[in-house]
Amino acid sequence: MKRAAVLGAGSWGTTFAKVLADAGCDVALHARRPELVQAISDDGENRDYLPGIRLPAAVRATGDAADALDGADVVVLAVPSQSLRQNLIAWAPLLPADATLLSLMKGIELGTTKRMSEVICEVTGAGADRVAALSGPNLAREIAEEQPAATVIACTDADRAAALQAACHTRYFRPYTNTDLVGCELGGALKNVVALACGIAEGLGFGDNTRASLITRGLAETARLGLALGAELTTFAGLAGLGDLVATCSSPLSRNRTFGEKLGRGMTVQEVQESTRQTAEGVKSCRSVLDLARAHGVDVPITEAVVRVCHEGESAAQMVREIMSREAKPE
Amino acid sequence: MKRAAVLGAGSWGTTFAKVLADAGCDVALHARRPELVQAISDDGENRDYLPGIRLPAAVRATGDAADALDGADVVVLAVPSQSLRQNLIAWAPLLPADATLLSLMKGIELGTTKRMSEVICEVTGAGADRVAALSGPNLAREIAEEQPAATVIACTDADRAAALQAACHTRYFRPYTNTDLVGCELGGALKNVVALACGIAEGLGFGDNTRASLITRGLAETARLGLALGAELTTFAGLAGLGDLVATCSSPLSRNRTFGEKLGRGMTVQEVQESTRQTAEGVKSCRSVLDLARAHGVDVPITEAVVRVCHEGESAAQMVREIMSREAKPE
Repeated sequence: MKRAAVLGAGSWGTTFAKVLADAGCDVALHARRPELVQAISDDGENRDYLPGIRLPAAVRATGDAADALDGADVVVLAVPSQSLRQNLIAWAPLLPADATLLSLMKGIELGTTKRMSEVICEVTGAGADRVAALSGPNLAREIAEEQPAATVIACTDADRAAALQAACHTRYFRPYTNTDLVGCELGGALKNVVALACGIAEGLGFGDNTRASLITRGLAETARLGLALGAELTTFAGLAGLGDLVATCSSPLSRNRTFGEKLGRGMTVQEVQESTRQTAEGVKSCRSVLDLARAHGVDVPITEAVVRVCHEGESAAQMVREIMSREAKPE
Repeated sequence: MKRAAVLGAGSWGTTFAKVLADAGCDVALHARRPELVQAISDDGENRDYLPGIRLPAAVRATGDAADALDGADVVVLAVPSQSLRQNLIAWAPLLPADATLLSLMKGIELGTTKRMSEVICEVTGAGADRVAALSGPNLAREIAEEQPAATVIACTDADRAAALQAACHTRYFRPYTNTDLVGCELGGALKNVVALACGIAEGLGFGDNTRASLITRGLAETARLGLALGAELTTFAGLAGLGDLVATCSSPLSRNRTFGEKLGRGMTVQEVQESTRQTAEGVKSCRSVLDLARAHGVDVPITEAVVRVCHEGESAAQMVREIMSREAKPE
C-alpha cells in the first residue's frame, strides 16, 4: 500500500484524498486550520468544502505537516497557486527524499511567471523527473460523487507517471499519462482565465454561441502560448486542454466561471471576493499569464481583456464587445 | 441589393432570412405548407418555429418555389438533410444559372453517404465552385435575438465565399471565410451525433466532467474522419469544428442534445419523435456517418454507440458506460 500526503484540504485536495484512498492508498490530509482538522476527524467529512461526501476510513486529517509527510511515497500539493512558494519553503525540509511531488494546482506564479512545477523544483531542489501535474475535466464535486471522470497525469519521467496512475486509478476515476508537463500545466492555468471570460459573458446575458466562440478562441490562445513554451499541440486537443476548458467554462460548479458571472452582473472584483470564501485562481493568474505571454511575444487577447476587467477597472460589457468584435480573425 | 431565396422556413432558415434582410438583401422565404406562408405573411413572424421574433420587412414569405427563386443571386438551402435530394429535384430547373447555392444543412445523406454539397452538385449539375456551406456556433434562437455570433462560410471559390460574407454580415452576425468545405460540412454533421451522446449522458444524470470528455473525444473522432476525407485539421479547431460542437452539446436550445436527454431519461426513439415536431438530424445522420467512416476505415466509437442506442435497441446507460470506459485511450 502506498502512503500519500495531501497538503491542502480545499474541495479538490479533499476529493483527491478520497480518490487515493479508494484506489488503496493510506492518506494523510493536511489542513492548516486546527478547527478544520478537528471537524474532518470528528465528522468523517469536510463540511466546509465538500459537504455531504463521506471520506473513506483510509483518509486521516492532520494539522501537522511533518506528521502528514512522514514516510509519504506521494506528496500531493493542493494549495492556492499564489501561496505555494511560501508553504513549500516550510514543507521542503520535511519531504521524504524520493517522494513523487504531484501538483493539483492550476496557476502561474505572480512576479516570476513560473509554472507550479517550476516553483516546486526551485524551492525543494527536486529534479524535474520527480515532479508531476494532474489536470483534466475534473470538477471536484462530481468526482467526489463518484461520477465517472478521466484525467491526465503529466511527468517527464514516464515510469513515475505510470506509478502515479496506478496510485489513483479507481472505478470512477481514470488517469492517463502524458510526458508533456508544460502543456498540461498551461492548459490548467489558462482555462481559469477563459472561464472568467465565459462567466462575464454569461452574467451579461450572452448565450451559448458567445460562450462557444470564447472557448474556441481561448483554446487557440492557450495553444499559441503553449507552442511558444515548447508544449505539444496534441495536449491542447486532449483532456487537459479542451476537456478541462469545456468543463470549467460550462459548469455552475466552476469557481472561476461563477466569479466571472458575478462580475458580468455588475459586481466589482472586491465585492465578489467578499461574497465568496473560495479562491478564483484566474483572477490572480490572469496577470501572470499575460506577463508570461508578453515575455514570449504571444498575442493573448482574451487574457488581456480579463486583466483589464479584473485589475484595470474596465467594464464587463465593454470587454465582451471588444472580444466578440475581434473574435475569429484566424479562421 | 442582393436578392436571396431561402428554401425552408424552419427555425434556422427563418433566422437566416432575417440575417440576410438585416444585411441589406431582398429575401424570399419559401415554406412548403400554405398555412405557414399565410401565417408568416399575416403576422410578420414565424410563430411555429421562431415565436416572438419580428421579421424585417425585406423578408417575404412565399409558397411558390419558382417565385422565390426568380432572379435570386443567392439560394439558401435549409431543409432537413434527408429530404434535400427530393426537394432539389423539383427546384433544380428553377435555379438561376449563376446563383450561389448555400447550404445551411448539417448531415450526411443516408444510403449514398454524401455530404450536402455533394448532393447539391449532383442534382443541380452546379460546379463545386458555386456551392458553399455555412457552419459555426449558431443556435438559431440566440441569433434571432441578435446576440453576437460568428460563423464560417466555406467555399472552394474564395471570391464567392467573400461575396456571401458581404451578403450576410450584420452588426450581430460575423461570417468568416474558409476554403475547407469538406471540414466545415463534416464538423456540422458529426456535432449533431456527439450532441445526442452528450444529451443521453445528461439524461442519465452525468455531469459536466462526462460531457467535457465526450466533447473532447467527439472532436478527435470528427478530426480523424475529416483527415481521411481530405479536410484541414485547423478547421476542426475553429468555429465550424470546436465552436459549433461546444455550442450544440451545451445548449438547452439544441434539438439533438434535447433529443438525447429524453433518450437518457428512458424514452424510446419513437416516443421522443412523437413528443417533438422538430427534426433531430443526428438520429438519422448517425447511420450515414458510421457508413462513411467504415468506408474509409476510420474508428468512430461515439458514433457507433449512438447508432446502437438510436437504431439497435441498446440501453442508454450501457452506452455511456462503454464510452466512458474506453474514453481517452489516445491521450
